[in-house]
Amino acid sequence: MRSAVSGHPGAPFDDSQTDDGKVDQVTSTHLQRAVDLARRGPLADPNPQVGCVLVKGERVIGEGWHAGAGTAHAEVVALRAAGDARGATAYVSLEPCNHTGRTGPCARALIDAGVAKVVYAQADPNPSAAGGAATLRAAGIEVEHAAIETGLGRYWTYAVTHQRPFVTWKFAATLDGRSAAADGSSQWITGPAAREDVQARRATAGAIIAGTGTVLADDPRLTVRGHDGEPLRVIVGHRDIPTTARVKVDDNYLQIATHDPAEVLDALQDRQIRHAWLEGGPRLAAAFLRAGLVDEIVAYLAPALLGAGANAVGDLGIDSIADIQRYELRDLARVGDDVRIVLSGKGI
Amino acid sequence: MRSAVSGHPGAPFDDSQTDDGKVDQVTSTHLQRAVDLARRGPLADPNPQVGCVLVKGERVIGEGWHAGAGTAHAEVVALRAAGDARGATAYVSLEPCNHTGRTGPCARALIDAGVAKVVYAQADPNPSAAGGAATLRAAGIEVEHAAIETGLGRYWTYAVTHQRPFVTWKFAATLDGRSAAADGSSQWITGPAAREDVQARRATAGAIIAGTGTVLADDPRLTVRGHDGEPLRVIVGHRDIPTTARVKVDDNYLQIATHDPAEVLDALQDRQIRHAWLEGGPRLAAAFLRAGLVDEIVAYLAPALLGAGANAVGDLGIDSIADIQRYELRDLARVGDDVRIVLSGKGI
Repeated sequence: MRSAVSGHPGAPFDDSQTDDGKVDQVTSTHLQRAVDLARRGPLADPNPQVGCVLVKGERVIGEGWHAGAGTAHAEVVALRAAGDARGATAYVSLEPCNHTGRTGPCARALIDAGVAKVVYAQADPNPSAAGGAATLRAAGIEVEHAAIETGLGRYWTYAVTHQRPFVTWKFAATLDGRSAAADGSSQWITGPAAREDVQARRATAGAIIAGTGTVLADDPRLTVRGHDGEPLRVIVGHRDIPTTARVKVDDNYLQIATHDPAEVLDALQDRQIRHAWLEGGPRLAAAFLRAGLVDEIVAYLAPALLGAGANAVGDLGIDSIADIQRYELRDLARVGDDVRIVLSGKGI
Repeated sequence: MRSAVSGHPGAPFDDSQTDDGKVDQVTSTHLQRAVDLARRGPLADPNPQVGCVLVKGERVIGEGWHAGAGTAHAEVVALRAAGDARGATAYVSLEPCNHTGRTGPCARALIDAGVAKVVYAQADPNPSAAGGAATLRAAGIEVEHAAIETGLGRYWTYAVTHQRPFVTWKFAATLDGRSAAADGSSQWITGPAAREDVQARRATAGAIIAGTGTVLADDPRLTVRGHDGEPLRVIVGHRDIPTTARVKVDDNYLQIATHDPAEVLDALQDRQIRHAWLEGGPRLAAAFLRAGLVDEIVAYLAPALLGAGANAVGDLGIDSIADIQRYELRDLARVGDDVRIVLSGKGI
C-alpha cells in the first residue's frame, strides 16, 4: 500500500516524517488510541475510518471518531468533546483533511480551535483532500507525521489513489478447482463455518457484484446475513432478471448492462464505493482477472474432489505456463473443515 | 490408525494395556528413548521402525534399533550390546515379534536372554507376527503394554492390516486446479521450496507410481534427489516406454501393464511395499480415487491462475454434488510461495 501512496502525484510532502522506531512512547500511546477509536467507524463507507485524541499536558481532553459520510469528522467530534482545546495536541490516525466536502476542512477546525500541535499517523492519499499538514504549518501549528502502521484504510487508500474500488474476488471450490458438479449442483461445497466467514467479510464491502448468469442460475439474495452492513447489490450483464428473483430491487440495487469490468468499476466509483466484493460466476470473474482488475482473491477450498463440473474461473486467454497469472500468498487458515487462502496482486 | 488396528481380527489381546496418562515417568522416559532410536531406521522398508532400550536397576545396559529388512531386529541388537541382560527390563517401541522371518522371533530372544520384564508402546498389528506378548507371558515374563503415542509405523501398520500399501497421491496445481497450461506446459507451476518438499517426502516412500502417459509427456526420472532412499520406480499402463526415456530401467524398476489400481497394489504388496507415492497423471490418479484406493492427498497449490489446461484430476464419474468425494483436512502449511494441503481418507 505504502508504495502506491507515495507514488501518487498528489501524495503530500512528508519532510517531518519520523520512522516507526523513533516514535516516542507518549505519541505512540495516543496515536494507538486514535487508531482504536477509528475502528468504531464503518468500514463500508465512502470516507475513511479516522480517530482523534486531544491531549493537554498529560490529560486527554477530548476524543472522537468518524461515524460515516455525512456525519462530523473525527477531529470536529473531539474538539466538541473538549470544549476548550487551546494549546492542546491533536493525535489523529489520518492527516487532517484540507477540503470542504459534506463538512468543512478539519485543518481549518483545528486552527480555529487554537490547537498547538498535530500528530498524525497516515498521510492523506486523497488528492482532493490532501494538504492538511501544509495548511496547519502555514498557520503556525507544529505538525508531526509519526508514521506508525495503523492497519486502517487499506481499501479506502487504494480506492482514492487508483480512482476505482479495491476489488476482492471470492470463490468456493473443491481442492481440484470445481465450483459445481457436472449437473450444476453446488450446494454445499464448503461448510457452514466457511459460509459464515463469507458473510462476515462481504459485510465490510461497499458492494457485492454478481453476473446475470449467476443470478439466473443460483438466485442469490446478495444480502448480508447476521452482520451489520448492507453492501450495494450489483448485477452485471445484459440479461433481464425475472421479477421473481430473490435479489431485492431497491435504492441499494444496481444492474449494469455491460461485460466490461472497467465500466462496472466506473459506475461504482461514481457511487464512492471503496471496496467491491466480486462473487462470480466464473466468466465474470475471468473478465475482471483478464482486465487486471482483481486486487485480492479469497478462496475457500473444501477437502473434497469432484473431477468434473464448472471450474472456479473461466478462460483467461492463457495458453502457456509463461503467461500464468501470479499473485502473492497473504493468508492461509483453516475455517471449519475448509481452507481459506487469501492472495493479493503483487505489491498490493 | 488405532481403530484400524484394533478392528483387525489379528489384533493382539491387550488386557494389561495402560492409558497414556497412567504411564509412569521412568517408563515414559525409556519408551521415548526407544522411539527416538527407532527413527534411526529406514522409513521406506518392508519392516517397521523399532527401537529397544534394556535397563537393569537404573542403568541402561543396551540399546538397539532395526536398520531394515535382513538385518537384526532392535531387541537382538540391544541384547548383543548388553551382553548379560538377565533380570533386565526391555523397553520396546513395538510389541516383540513372534514369528521367524529372515531373523528369529524376538520374543524367543528376550526369553532366552533372561529378561525379567518387557514394556512395549505399540501392539503388533501384523497378523503373521503378533502374539509376542502372549509368548513372553507364557514364559513367565512380566509384560506391560504402555500405549504411548509413538508416531511410528503409520504406513507400515496400515499396510499390514489392510494387506496393501498405504497410497499417497501428490499433485501440484494452480489455485484453480490446473496442473498444466492449455499447451501442456507445466514447468514450473510451484516453486523450488515446494519441489524440494516433494523430494523429501517421496524419499520416504517405498515406491513412486506414474502412468505411461506421464512418462511419455514429462519424461520424469522418478528418482529422489538430495535425499537418501531409492523408491521402486513403478510405471503403470500398456504403452511402451521408449528406451530413450530418462527413467532408469533396472532391478528397482517395474512396469505394470494394467489400468486397474488394485492390480498395481497387489504387485506392490508382493514386493512388501508399505507406502506408495502416486504422482499421476490425472487419469491414473482418477482411477485410484474412483477405486477408493487413495489414503492421503498431498496437494501443492501455487498462488496463481491458469483458467484453462489440464485439471489436476480426471473424471471421477461424479455427476452431482451429492456424490462429492470428501476427505479430512490433516495439515495446512505455507511452503515457500506455495500452499501445501494434506488430506486423508475419513478415519485414516
